[in-house]
Amino acid sequence: MTTVDIPRTVAGTDPRTGLTLRPAVAETRPATVAQIIEAAEAVAPELAALGRGGRAALLRGLADAIEARRSDLVTIADSETALGAPRLGSEITRTAFQLRFFADVLDEGSYLEATIDTAADTPTGPRPDLRRLLVPIGPVAVFGASNFPFAFSVPGGDTASALAAGSPVVVKAHGSHPGTSQLVYEILAAGLRSAGAPAETIGIVFGRAAGETLVSHPAIRAVGFTGSLSGGRALLEAIGRRDEPIPFYGELSSLNPLVVSAAAAAERAEQIGGAVIRSVTGSAGQLCTKPGLLLVPAGADGDQLVAAAASALGNAPVVPLLNDRIHRSYVHDTAVLAAAPGVLEVARASREAESGFHVGALLVTADAPDVPSVVFDEYFGPAAVIIRYRTTDELMRVLKSAPASLTATLHTGSGETPAELVTALGRVAGRIVFDGYPTGVSVSWAQHHGGPWPATNSFHTSVGATAIRRFLRPLTWQNAPQGLLPVELRDGSVDIPRRIDGAIHLPRTGTPRVL
Amino acid sequence: MTTVDIPRTVAGTDPRTGLTLRPAVAETRPATVAQIIEAAEAVAPELAALGRGGRAALLRGLADAIEARRSDLVTIADSETALGAPRLGSEITRTAFQLRFFADVLDEGSYLEATIDTAADTPTGPRPDLRRLLVPIGPVAVFGASNFPFAFSVPGGDTASALAAGSPVVVKAHGSHPGTSQLVYEILAAGLRSAGAPAETIGIVFGRAAGETLVSHPAIRAVGFTGSLSGGRALLEAIGRRDEPIPFYGELSSLNPLVVSAAAAAERAEQIGGAVIRSVTGSAGQLCTKPGLLLVPAGADGDQLVAAAASALGNAPVVPLLNDRIHRSYVHDTAVLAAAPGVLEVARASREAESGFHVGALLVTADAPDVPSVVFDEYFGPAAVIIRYRTTDELMRVLKSAPASLTATLHTGSGETPAELVTALGRVAGRIVFDGYPTGVSVSWAQHHGGPWPATNSFHTSVGATAIRRFLRPLTWQNAPQGLLPVELRDGSVDIPRRIDGAIHLPRTGTPRVL
Repeated sequence: MTTVDIPRTVAGTDPRTGLTLRPAVAETRPATVAQIIEAAEAVAPELAALGRGGRAALLRGLADAIEARRSDLVTIADSETALGAPRLGSEITRTAFQLRFFADVLDEGSYLEATIDTAADTPTGPRPDLRRLLVPIGPVAVFGASNFPFAFSVPGGDTASALAAGSPVVVKAHGSHPGTSQLVYEILAAGLRSAGAPAETIGIVFGRAAGETLVSHPAIRAVGFTGSLSGGRALLEAIGRRDEPIPFYGELSSLNPLVVSAAAAAERAEQIGGAVIRSVTGSAGQLCTKPGLLLVPAGADGDQLVAAAASALGNAPVVPLLNDRIHRSYVHDTAVLAAAPGVLEVARASREAESGFHVGALLVTADAPDVPSVVFDEYFGPAAVIIRYRTTDELMRVLKSAPASLTATLHTGSGETPAELVTALGRVAGRIVFDGYPTGVSVSWAQHHGGPWPATNSFHTSVGATAIRRFLRPLTWQNAPQGLLPVELRDGSVDIPRRIDGAIHLPRTGTPRVL
Repeated sequence: MTTVDIPRTVAGTDPRTGLTLRPAVAETRPATVAQIIEAAEAVAPELAALGRGGRAALLRGLADAIEARRSDLVTIADSETALGAPRLGSEITRTAFQLRFFADVLDEGSYLEATIDTAADTPTGPRPDLRRLLVPIGPVAVFGASNFPFAFSVPGGDTASALAAGSPVVVKAHGSHPGTSQLVYEILAAGLRSAGAPAETIGIVFGRAAGETLVSHPAIRAVGFTGSLSGGRALLEAIGRRDEPIPFYGELSSLNPLVVSAAAAAERAEQIGGAVIRSVTGSAGQLCTKPGLLLVPAGADGDQLVAAAASALGNAPVVPLLNDRIHRSYVHDTAVLAAAPGVLEVARASREAESGFHVGALLVTADAPDVPSVVFDEYFGPAAVIIRYRTTDELMRVLKSAPASLTATLHTGSGETPAELVTALGRVAGRIVFDGYPTGVSVSWAQHHGGPWPATNSFHTSVGATAIRRFLRPLTWQNAPQGLLPVELRDGSVDIPRRIDGAIHLPRTGTPRVL
């Protein structure tokens, strides 16, 4: 008797119909996962040897390669995510921009933190020549996100920043878009070969079991993850079982409180009420920075804001949710929310009858100070909770009870400068947004996309220049001969900023400016 | 019937005699630990409000206060550690230097990573004004080390860097030197008051249970620890049980391999053999950077080096070990080592008969490639293992089998530039030392005192300027009014380096130089 070992598969689902898409992709077997990781580890020296210039050219080549296949990518991603061609097209633009941005970060070079202390006498005795640089940590595991099939998935910010750092990447494709993941992986692999880099620099694996194998493998040196709190907890536990702990850069859950001051409500209730709902319902509310907890003053101005929001919610175009799990959670959890004592439903767009994973947007209110704890859960989808507060003290108490977030937003009246409130918001978030909306996370030098637990579990960011820091480690050379130092640490002129004996020196070829 | 609740106590022991010292210090009860932490949390805003200048003055004041009590501190520390007055005096110098160094780091200001992206149009759409700064993370738990009663204990580098960051500190005093810890804590508390800072900025707790309560308290935001791998594992597990994970900056174990090339052995066998033993036996080998694994070529030159080392070991002055636990471990573990198949004892200083925690220094050899795994354990105390290798391949195999370390050292012959070997050493250590010895860790800008697990569990350092980074987190302000920004992020001239729209700007008042 023989048994036939039929591999399990990962298939996408059309969110508009709920029907399974073909072809399915095979789950990656544990032995294959290990081979992919070990191949990535083996080529790590080659990636490092490309140097900053070589890796910058590589990243720009990958950006070009993705943009050249924009139409194919949008088509397959839309079939698997239903996010729509405009949003997916702009996500490809963002993804290419990120890759090119990290090429700029490499060109500029201060991410290396090159530091030279020349030999000297000190109060503690003679100091040797010490030279410090950040070096690649080695192969990195990246978990694709359901809600960004490009920008936070196979070719996303984690991959871009890890490659920039000089660390190979093995991506665990998200089950919501296996076809998109496979296609974009093939484009990247071809791009690597065109740039003269080993194709093994980026690997891809499919299936939940492959993800656990991935984070458990001793050659993996860090994990980048964007997903649910429960998924993140499970990976943290798998990491905890390793012989050697490794950093877990997780982005897990975020309420993103948005506070409207009494003066702001008095000045522009209508405008804020409409705009905040666009932020809540964009991409069907499936954004990690969706403002899910709105703090609005009690009274007539606040009432007007709530009415404007309720009206906007009814008219908001809402695409179907990404997958069955998110759909079921949203339907179940928002039903619990709306039925909770102390919670009042103020608007609901009734789309439950439609096919696939369509849902209705939902807006509820509760009155401070004694709000039910259910308002502090994240509802991934087009739902928001409005808390009505009467006093600053009530507002502060609600903020203190809420979990920490990626962002906190404050709308103020003209001339209003509530320093104490801003300090309180800064304690529970990684980014404070003034008189705006937290969705839309610019890729730039000063961006921070992180926050205290459970927003993320670290002090690092997954968006912006400093995301590269996650995939580097410091190394110091003591009394090294010039020839054995990395070029960035040698004597003489270099093309990057360096700290020498405590003072920053700018490169002659750069654009040194004194403010 | 009544029960009298007699508090448990922590008493030091005189390592020279093994006798318990008086007075003992009471273990801190859980409720008191919580009060101390909450008091530290309550004054965190005051510490932050001192600003860089205020905290720099505070650190300099604390340095002065400690030096003013040098004689008292050396006396009590010597009674509890037997490290001797010269070593303890220089440790006080180092401790004061560290406090002043972090004041310099504050003055210079680039540790804040102040970054400004002005509003702009980008390929991904309009970018808001974004300004990023590192802010204090909040109260920090610091665990004192047995082997540095000052520099890695109550007033040590963790405390100095956390205070510089603006984060209050609660220290768990090490049981080897409770009297020293209490005295230096009182000096610091007085120094805080003199500087106009709240005395609650630094707290102290005693006892193992207090340490667990400390890392479990929700207000503690990070843990700095120097100690054993098992102690570190236990704290990591306690942290794993928290609702919110926090970073654990542990320094746990380190072999510090030291490689002597064939050419180096040919050139200076005698010199290296003598000097390496001074590094092995200094402070009775109780240093985290002690070179415990020496890789020496087989053959006549290597034999000469081993003979010189054996001779030096017999003459090395060795002070008693720090405490009963270290003493018992050393006696037991080195006996196992010396008796292991394949291990040959080449020198032993017989001092076991002396009183207290005196031990004999030990030197053993084993032949590559098939060395017993016992040579890869850390022997905390004046012991070292010499591995004799015949080929570069054997050398590389031993290095690959050894756990990662804080340091790796390489002695080469003149003109020798073994790039591949240096790369291999850089993979398993945080600092590569050329033609020197790893003990003696300078406090400076380019220093890195960390390494891959189990040397430390993070990419951070406990020595040097960047140690401050452990106790800071990024925060970004989006479209903030000038008045609500930290002074370092406002428009116009400031006294620190900043990145503006991607380019580094140096302060007018500083010493901008173009290399």
